[in-house]
Amino acid sequence: MLTVYSEKHALHNPRGELCGGELVVPFECPARVEHILQRVKKVALGDIIAPGNFGIEAVARVHDPAYVRFLESCWRQWSAAGYRGDAIATVWPARGMQQRIPEHIEGKLGYYALACETAITRGTWEAARASVDVALTAQAALRDGERAAFALCRPPGHHAAADLFGGYCFINNAAVATQAFIDQGAERVALLDVDFHHGNGSQAVFYDRSDIMFLSLHGDPKYAFPHFLGYADETGCGAGEGYNHNYPMGPGTCFSTWGEALADACRNIRNYAPDALVVSLGVDTFEHDPISFFRLTSEDFRRYGATIARLDLPTLFVMEGGYAVDEIGINAVNVLEGYEGR
Amino acid sequence: MLTVYSEKHALHNPRGELCGGELVVPFECPARVEHILQRVKKVALGDIIAPGNFGIEAVARVHDPAYVRFLESCWRQWSAAGYRGDAIATVWPARGMQQRIPEHIEGKLGYYALACETAITRGTWEAARASVDVALTAQAALRDGERAAFALCRPPGHHAAADLFGGYCFINNAAVATQAFIDQGAERVALLDVDFHHGNGSQAVFYDRSDIMFLSLHGDPKYAFPHFLGYADETGCGAGEGYNHNYPMGPGTCFSTWGEALADACRNIRNYAPDALVVSLGVDTFEHDPISFFRLTSEDFRRYGATIARLDLPTLFVMEGGYAVDEIGINAVNVLEGYEGR
Repeated sequence: MLTVYSEKHALHNPRGELCGGELVVPFECPARVEHILQRVKKVALGDIIAPGNFGIEAVARVHDPAYVRFLESCWRQWSAAGYRGDAIATVWPARGMQQRIPEHIEGKLGYYALACETAITRGTWEAARASVDVALTAQAALRDGERAAFALCRPPGHHAAADLFGGYCFINNAAVATQAFIDQGAERVALLDVDFHHGNGSQAVFYDRSDIMFLSLHGDPKYAFPHFLGYADETGCGAGEGYNHNYPMGPGTCFSTWGEALADACRNIRNYAPDALVVSLGVDTFEHDPISFFRLTSEDFRRYGATIARLDLPTLFVMEGGYAVDEIGINAVNVLEGYEGR
Repeated sequence: MLTVYSEKHALHNPRGELCGGELVVPFECPARVEHILQRVKKVALGDIIAPGNFGIEAVARVHDPAYVRFLESCWRQWSAAGYRGDAIATVWPARGMQQRIPEHIEGKLGYYALACETAITRGTWEAARASVDVALTAQAALRDGERAAFALCRPPGHHAAADLFGGYCFINNAAVATQAFIDQGAERVALLDVDFHHGNGSQAVFYDRSDIMFLSLHGDPKYAFPHFLGYADETGCGAGEGYNHNYPMGPGTCFSTWGEALADACRNIRNYAPDALVVSLGVDTFEHDPISFFRLTSEDFRRYGATIARLDLPTLFVMEGGYAVDEIGINAVNVLEGYEGR
């Protein structure tokens, strides 16, 4: 399987992550993808290529133009305001408040944020652009005939909505790639999110559409980030009614339960008969993940890779979360090896 | 003038405040009220008394019961979750997300927060309860015949809405005291907010009511916290239409401009002919305040105290913000001395 990777991910390297009332060493760190890259090499998964340079047009198909300008200019505005730390939101438009976009960067940051564990740094925009280029390059490989490809994206993307960043995400790489399939003529695309956390951004982007089915297996939002989306009764709206499938699961969920949810998701995908499948691949479902509460083993990742393969669809894997850094390479690549039948 | 003060304010003492991407020494610190208390004593403003014990009923007249239970139990839940720092929100119900209240404290915290510079600590609830008791004790003194009183509240309150904390505020002391006047038979009460920051909580609480007029002079939300409320076109709704007056002003505003806004607010108050006046007294309009951008001098505070006195109304001063700690005593008490004609 082809892997696309850019070393520019390392340009996004926040000094701290707000967690438990402290600024801790970020869970979402550059070492994550380096471990995965090493594993890809070790098992000789296939070629590893650098991304091409895609323009902003594909991004603008999913994200609000003003949001894109904000991401691009945030660090410049933040620095100009004299702040010494990374750009972290501190106030946001809560219930009953205005949705007007303030002039000051402190206000803009809160307007476009859904969480404040996620910092914007000097290199975040360049890293995020490279990350979506990684996804689009892998998507283009499928367009050009590859059966499957692995976009080793960082920063991840699935929490980013049309005009919201957070949960370590800025540009929704998987959503942009999914839309690219449609723009290239696909009639239906399924976006399957197996990250531990609900793909709230992807859901929001496609919620009113029937040409993209979104399915997410994740920690019940009552107990897990992002807390405010991902309930089972969110089934789509308008033309999209019935094309959104959430599988929230509680603390301690093992593969027996998780695998049943995946089997149901796969049934929905088969009935939908999409032209392509995009997988938002987070491996924070792992039993030893430091910020999640599922109990999948490393071998379970291989098993569900095989399950996804049986859908027999052109499949784009887009890397999302996973914070047990020492095992992230094994777990992520196990999915891909399972898919390849190795 | 009578002053009400409780030493319990010191129980709220967060380890850090999120500002500029760093956890800094909190601007909203215990020393603030100690400086004011010393100044009250130094100028012999009048008697200083401890608050009485008011029940939760007066608080429940303004705040949502579930929010009150959250404030009361937050630290216990947060500690039980194993977090090591103070309770700081990290994710919230952003645009397009659900307003369901999660089970996990991380989610609850974000549901009830409007900002994350504000930490909830072990002693926050007790301090907030004492703070509102300070306001209610001062209010009771007016009920019992005092012409004016000073509630030396900390934590402050005016950013707290019916079910939102943030901006250093948990219980809206001024709003609770204002409601107490109504509950004791007042037909109309004016709540004048002269803190640098818009009193978004007070506005939200009384936005649909004609028996309470809210007026706020503050930094334009385009450039200043809380950023998402406080525009001039927010004039009230329903029965409250026309009873909300915002005076947003830009960076560098001096007393000449600020005083004109105050004069206009006073005209509105006179026309309204309230039975009592509550003043949300923040002195972060001071020229050297570290987190604000107005340019009032210490002498200006004395001048506007005299302006407020000319309204000739029973007047309850409720302490809100002010972060130039060395001068906070002089500035706050200058308002009170100006009011007293000293």
